[in-house]
Amino acid sequence: MAIKKTSERPSREPDDRVEKSRKAVLAATHQLLAESGLSGVSVDEVARRSGVAKTTIYRHWQSRESLLLDACSQLSSRPPVPNTGKLRTDLEAWIAEAVRRLQQPWATVMPSIIDAAERDKAIAELQSRIHAQMRAGLVAVIEHAQARSELPHSENPRKIAAFILGPIMYRRFISREPLDEAFAKSIVKWAMRIE
Amino acid sequence: MAIKKTSERPSREPDDRVEKSRKAVLAATHQLLAESGLSGVSVDEVARRSGVAKTTIYRHWQSRESLLLDACSQLSSRPPVPNTGKLRTDLEAWIAEAVRRLQQPWATVMPSIIDAAERDKAIAELQSRIHAQMRAGLVAVIEHAQARSELPHSENPRKIAAFILGPIMYRRFISREPLDEAFAKSIVKWAMRIE
Repeated sequence: MAIKKTSERPSREPDDRVEKSRKAVLAATHQLLAESGLSGVSVDEVARRSGVAKTTIYRHWQSRESLLLDACSQLSSRPPVPNTGKLRTDLEAWIAEAVRRLQQPWATVMPSIIDAAERDKAIAELQSRIHAQMRAGLVAVIEHAQARSELPHSENPRKIAAFILGPIMYRRFISREPLDEAFAKSIVKWAMRIE
Repeated sequence: MAIKKTSERPSREPDDRVEKSRKAVLAATHQLLAESGLSGVSVDEVARRSGVAKTTIYRHWQSRESLLLDACSQLSSRPPVPNTGKLRTDLEAWIAEAVRRLQQPWATVMPSIIDAAERDKAIAELQSRIHAQMRAGLVAVIEHAQARSELPHSENPRKIAAFILGPIMYRRFISREPLDEAFAKSIVKWAMRIE
């Protein structure tokens, strides 16, 4: 419920000043998220950093949670879908972009969302949406390969996606081992053998 | 540094009462960890739950962090290493046990450790140790298969482990999809093709 409400905008034309303070608040929230994760964001601290009064913040977002959901949604921009006509080159491009994004500062926010999702349904929904967006390009690459019979039609694309994205996420967040080019190549090589 | 210190024990024989309150404190910490993750554990709340005075808690552990590190270390017991003589059956047994553990209540603590590891070196070290213990049996299974030439000798066992454990961790914590038997079978089937 909370998630939908945050995207509603007042029907009157927002003036420049309103838009400017909205942007400042979101920027401060992104900064705090990158520095200390979900639990490090308080409306007090966002007000201090952005220079926007708490009352103004609460005029845009009902609650700290609404603000968090809005800020996190904006972080999960949809990566482009490679379409080279071949599974190998599509996968190489998609993995390279995913690895690049996972090494940017905001990627450190992801584990705090994953953690909060274990105990909070609204965050779990947000986590699902962010993840579905992140994975969408990979699923498209897999479906294109299935249409060309480069991958078996019988397999669920989301299962194949787990085999490709799983080792990447595992190395980044769990084993904390390098996501180098050799590792990316092995995943592509292995994915080409799915049948 | 902090990690090593927590495992040091006073040289005098601990009496029963000391051991009993130590156990009560660890049990309360485990409970709080399962309920609310790493950030939900305060020494005040541990004292309240365990009925052990704060001063006594600080006699055993220098700080909240030492207590957390000690409690988390105890959660990561080493799973048994299957040794059936065949990669397929070894993997089936190892994956079944890993999936069972990942569905127990304390598994919800793992994301809060993963999250804190992004920003705290002592926790990152702890996370590495917990993860190395969790993975040790799988690495042994892979090495046994390499010795029997069921898997290529040229591949790093930890890389093969990422291909097997990655999709499991991904489904449990990131895509939040079911870890059913069909998925486990697909991983085994796919792992048998590594060459």
